[in-house]
Amino acid sequence: MPFWVSSSAAVPSLPKRKRAMSDVIALASYAADVWLPAGGGTELVSAIDGSIVATMPAEAEPTVMLDYARRVGGPALRAMTFQQRGKMLRALADALSARKDELYQLSFLTGATRGDNAFDIDGGIGTLFVYASKAKALPDTHVMLDGGREAISKGNFAGQHILAPLSGVAVHINAYNFPVWGMLEKLAPTLLAGVPAIVKPATTGAYLTAAAFRIMIDSGALPPGAVQLLLGSTGDLINQLGGQDSVAFTGSAATAAKLKANPNVIANTVRFTAEQDSLNASVLGPEVSIESPEFDLFVKEAVREITQKAGQKCTAIRRIMVSQALLEPVQQAIVARLSKTAVGDPREETTRMGALAGLPQRDDVADNVARLRGEAEVVTGGEALDLGGSLGQGAFFAPTLLRCDNPATAEMVHAVEAFGPVSTLMPYGDLDDAVALANRGLGSLAMSIFSHDPVAVAALVSGTSVFHGRIMVVDRDSAADATGHGAALPHLQHGGPGRAGGGAELGGVIGMMPYLQRTALQAAPATLDLLAGL
Amino acid sequence: MPFWVSSSAAVPSLPKRKRAMSDVIALASYAADVWLPAGGGTELVSAIDGSIVATMPAEAEPTVMLDYARRVGGPALRAMTFQQRGKMLRALADALSARKDELYQLSFLTGATRGDNAFDIDGGIGTLFVYASKAKALPDTHVMLDGGREAISKGNFAGQHILAPLSGVAVHINAYNFPVWGMLEKLAPTLLAGVPAIVKPATTGAYLTAAAFRIMIDSGALPPGAVQLLLGSTGDLINQLGGQDSVAFTGSAATAAKLKANPNVIANTVRFTAEQDSLNASVLGPEVSIESPEFDLFVKEAVREITQKAGQKCTAIRRIMVSQALLEPVQQAIVARLSKTAVGDPREETTRMGALAGLPQRDDVADNVARLRGEAEVVTGGEALDLGGSLGQGAFFAPTLLRCDNPATAEMVHAVEAFGPVSTLMPYGDLDDAVALANRGLGSLAMSIFSHDPVAVAALVSGTSVFHGRIMVVDRDSAADATGHGAALPHLQHGGPGRAGGGAELGGVIGMMPYLQRTALQAAPATLDLLAGL
Repeated sequence: MPFWVSSSAAVPSLPKRKRAMSDVIALASYAADVWLPAGGGTELVSAIDGSIVATMPAEAEPTVMLDYARRVGGPALRAMTFQQRGKMLRALADALSARKDELYQLSFLTGATRGDNAFDIDGGIGTLFVYASKAKALPDTHVMLDGGREAISKGNFAGQHILAPLSGVAVHINAYNFPVWGMLEKLAPTLLAGVPAIVKPATTGAYLTAAAFRIMIDSGALPPGAVQLLLGSTGDLINQLGGQDSVAFTGSAATAAKLKANPNVIANTVRFTAEQDSLNASVLGPEVSIESPEFDLFVKEAVREITQKAGQKCTAIRRIMVSQALLEPVQQAIVARLSKTAVGDPREETTRMGALAGLPQRDDVADNVARLRGEAEVVTGGEALDLGGSLGQGAFFAPTLLRCDNPATAEMVHAVEAFGPVSTLMPYGDLDDAVALANRGLGSLAMSIFSHDPVAVAALVSGTSVFHGRIMVVDRDSAADATGHGAALPHLQHGGPGRAGGGAELGGVIGMMPYLQRTALQAAPATLDLLAGL
Repeated sequence: MPFWVSSSAAVPSLPKRKRAMSDVIALASYAADVWLPAGGGTELVSAIDGSIVATMPAEAEPTVMLDYARRVGGPALRAMTFQQRGKMLRALADALSARKDELYQLSFLTGATRGDNAFDIDGGIGTLFVYASKAKALPDTHVMLDGGREAISKGNFAGQHILAPLSGVAVHINAYNFPVWGMLEKLAPTLLAGVPAIVKPATTGAYLTAAAFRIMIDSGALPPGAVQLLLGSTGDLINQLGGQDSVAFTGSAATAAKLKANPNVIANTVRFTAEQDSLNASVLGPEVSIESPEFDLFVKEAVREITQKAGQKCTAIRRIMVSQALLEPVQQAIVARLSKTAVGDPREETTRMGALAGLPQRDDVADNVARLRGEAEVVTGGEALDLGGSLGQGAFFAPTLLRCDNPATAEMVHAVEAFGPVSTLMPYGDLDDAVALANRGLGSLAMSIFSHDPVAVAALVSGTSVFHGRIMVVDRDSAADATGHGAALPHLQHGGPGRAGGGAELGGVIGMMPYLQRTALQAAPATLDLLAGL
């Protein structure tokens, strides 16, 4: 075991491989405002030591849920104004805040460190707070104006676009990496829009999602039918959706493709939003030298992106791009920092990187690293870690840096997302080359540029923006205030074109658009005034 | 032949069944700024008399077109600012205006009357003019701001969404019903956004589209590669598209479904916009009596929507909804007006309704009327018309009103779009019933409400807006200025949810969104200022 891995011997009271049955949580789906029978045949294990954390049913009642959401949840939410729904989000955020310690404890079992908890749990709650705050600027009515009056006639007749909540159901299919944030970042815009949601968490870590969900139900802040929890298989849910319904999917491109091609989704124009694979790049400006403040800022950010959430962020930096001259120095600096990163039991204060979400996920990461190795060499890491003791059953993986010397001709490093603590360092020639390499991701969620040269920044942003949903520019003057490459903020769009799936979540009203229908009204101005106040 | 059909004997110089070969237009695709070899094996016939109007190649060179658009057209357009591109649209509109008589002459052969020409040709040119005018409010730069600054940090760091033109190609697959407007309503937002287009017209009437296209090329207003014309089969075009490309499709839901399910479209997240089937409703307010001004306004609009373009408008009223008490009076009034509608040679001044686009289209209409007859009775029309003489080879169909007495239990009348001069009258009970019936279209492009009662208008709009892309409200005070149920205006969104395909064309910047990528920028405010000026 490398010296920089925190020893499991230092952890005094780890749970046993098999917990006492009384410790095992029996999870239940929540349908039509009733908790369905708890527990079942699906066992969810701790990412740290493989012990059984929870049991879960294999299926739920999608038909009941859809009917209740359409019949009860939708009307209840639509009876509220945008501002009232904002207050509801605030109440949910308060309830979750008050009980977030409970969530932290469960979150550790997903492999997340204290820092990761802040990202997932506090980040999720923060998303609710920001959306609640944004709601204050929305109308205290049931319809939102979209743009101003359109002069379509010289007389007593004009145009006005309005936005109103769809009358259907929002189906949220979440990924395993953010059990809390993943649920809340979709719920905040959906509920503020006025649309009831069915939350389908990933099986891995579902106990944490279920715990946060239960706190929201317990809060009493939600009207009947506003949210339902679907554990296990979705059954034929997707085949029952219509043109007023929507699916917001986060996960692999392969699964997204399957859902998008569903004949019912296509025939009924079911709205479909996807956040999927993304080979996010971070570019160090060509003017940067080893002495530049941006050098250290860049290295720190690269290391944070590799290790935070053990690299299980769809926004994490997968491709680290530097000028040829800085390839060696950056490599050495990253390796030096990674070697000081304590990997181990996430409950330990000193641990800087925890476990992957589970052993199957670890196998996937190992497989993808093997694919990358065809084009890149492993500089450090690249393997699963056996931390010994009970942690030996945990899903630990070494922080991994690969290096690809010929990225222009490589394919895999721009296409294979190893969803773990894995990133590939690669050199670029001139700015055009850097632009071309960044865009080889064929559509990404996030990119970052570390440069103090306005000319370089302008060229990089100008050349890459249409391939990226979000671009962060950092230099010595802004670094202290920067929010980080990997952080999807509620204020800004989260989603990217092409390979990233074409979605646009968050970003205030932007993230509400999948749940709102725009209608162009044409009428006498006095009638438009009336309709705007609905 | 009914008395109200204008006699073909009155037309002095109709073309012969077979024109002289010298009259037959040889159409050519336009690829990489070169006209490909003209003519070919596909014969296009006049809708009026079946004579051969043009010949056309069966295939083009999609690979060449895609490469040229990406390599030449995109960079050329993106080198221009939004305002410069607006001036380009203005120049195109001027060029088309100057030669619109040429287009009128060809348009007659598609079955369109003088009034229909105004809708298709002048309407298309008007769309360019309005977009040119809207461009004046856009920045004289290459990037557009989307919303204001976002406060994401208390310090030297903020957020800003920008919009920039995709670096790929826009593929426009147009329907046969508007050979000119259909091309221009897609080109205006696409070119203003800065994206090169490949125009694929429907085969029927392609000679008219090609003529308008040639005028634009001749104008010299377009940079190289900005537009290309693809006649005949798209070959494997769709399989070559990527995440920066888009398809804007207008046509049947069946064809749209096939394209949307294309594995390449799904795998590469090719942007896909569809305008497809739509069972548009027009509702007469429950307070209206025979004496109300709205009664006559409603009847006139219903008749106009049945007869204009021989009902071949995706926005046309297909379902006429009135209170039970007014069912008989409305039926009588519509039939009386339809009986005075002169159907015949569209070149005649007195003709009020021309031919369908072709005999296959007429067969489709007849088939769909037969399907509707299972639930509704034909009140007038319902059959193809043989106008005798050379017009006997034309695709004429009688203006048709059906009546469905039990719309709540009917299925077909809400689902089958007979794309011709066909509409179904049906009664509603109370306002809730009217709302439910309108929404049975499961997503429509346009709806209209004729009512002078604010309570009824509010209830109808509130209940139906999310099922409709556009709703027009007309009463005695606004009627003189109203732009009409069927008119898609460049200022307002054209597109509807669900069955209508989920697209959003036109509407100023709204219609440009399929061709723009939104990117969230995060940087120091000074850097954001710099990037906003790109």
